[in-house]
Amino acid sequence: MRNPLENLERALARLPGLGRRSAERAALALVRQPEVLADPLLAAIAEARAGVVCCDICGGFTLRSENPCPRCTDPMRDTSALCVVEEPGDIAAIERSGAFNGLYHALHGKVSASRGTGPADLRLDALAKRLSSERFREVILATGTDLDGDATAEFLAGMVRSAAPGATVSRLAFGLPVDSGIAYSDPVTLKRAMAGRR
Amino acid sequence: MRNPLENLERALARLPGLGRRSAERAALALVRQPEVLADPLLAAIAEARAGVVCCDICGGFTLRSENPCPRCTDPMRDTSALCVVEEPGDIAAIERSGAFNGLYHALHGKVSASRGTGPADLRLDALAKRLSSERFREVILATGTDLDGDATAEFLAGMVRSAAPGATVSRLAFGLPVDSGIAYSDPVTLKRAMAGRR
Repeated sequence: MRNPLENLERALARLPGLGRRSAERAALALVRQPEVLADPLLAAIAEARAGVVCCDICGGFTLRSENPCPRCTDPMRDTSALCVVEEPGDIAAIERSGAFNGLYHALHGKVSASRGTGPADLRLDALAKRLSSERFREVILATGTDLDGDATAEFLAGMVRSAAPGATVSRLAFGLPVDSGIAYSDPVTLKRAMAGRR
Repeated sequence: MRNPLENLERALARLPGLGRRSAERAALALVRQPEVLADPLLAAIAEARAGVVCCDICGGFTLRSENPCPRCTDPMRDTSALCVVEEPGDIAAIERSGAFNGLYHALHGKVSASRGTGPADLRLDALAKRLSSERFREVILATGTDLDGDATAEFLAGMVRSAAPGATVSRLAFGLPVDSGIAYSDPVTLKRAMAGRR
């Protein structure tokens, strides 16, 4: 028998952040409490599926009815600064920090030798157009701190230098996360935190 | 603006096994890869929601088209042994261990002082009827090893002694890690616990 419960477990296990056990628990809970868990989740997925799109300008998430997104069209934002991120979800994290009030550009990926993702797969044509037409004074490269993030930042830095030679290029500082102890930090983070001491 | 992405995060975070961070990552992934992740998950939830029900006899999960479930109607199973579990999902875990070939009864909960769940909330009337009509020689109490599981097993033991005085009552051997539910135990642990029942 094809088992709908196992199908559900498999569909859940494909999500990032869920191991096999978590997917199993979640599937059982969904079947056990359909009104409380399954129906709201069905509605929320369908709603997000239908209503959330990527902004035509920055590539960040926005409502289908608000494209370009509210960030790209907000007259109060600093249009001389651009922050380039890997994923649309990174934008929300930076917005929560309150540390940046400029514009964004989400690449939808990163240059990854291990996964065979090259510059051609990213939203780089759109970025090149923005860099030459929007006259940014500063471009912040907010890519991840893993090897692929480093490679992506390096690639982007070269691109900014040629497409917008007047712009300052910076990268988010490396260092220890707030509220974490030295003893529990990994060696690479510590090395970078030490190198960036001031 | 009511944000469909946040609604989706909240609906996901309500599932057991997902923290806030996992729910956030999962929501982003669902929106980022709708065809690969959201559509199969929507279909799987809808399918499980529509097709999976609880067996009228044992209370375990079964297809709507197979009620009573294949376990309750299988002529090869030992109808003299009954295994009482808390949740429908516990049955699949015990089946995977291969250590039991009798019949099941899922209570759909446990006696819990902390959550105010008393015997009246469980499938105990159905259990009492089965105990007096089905002539079991052995009743295995496979409740969890937490305090509520102990209380439930104690309550059930008294019930079996009066409703089926000829039956042996046993409980899964300690061998299960304390404070864990049956559904999340690995097959080997379950098999040993089943073999060591007393």
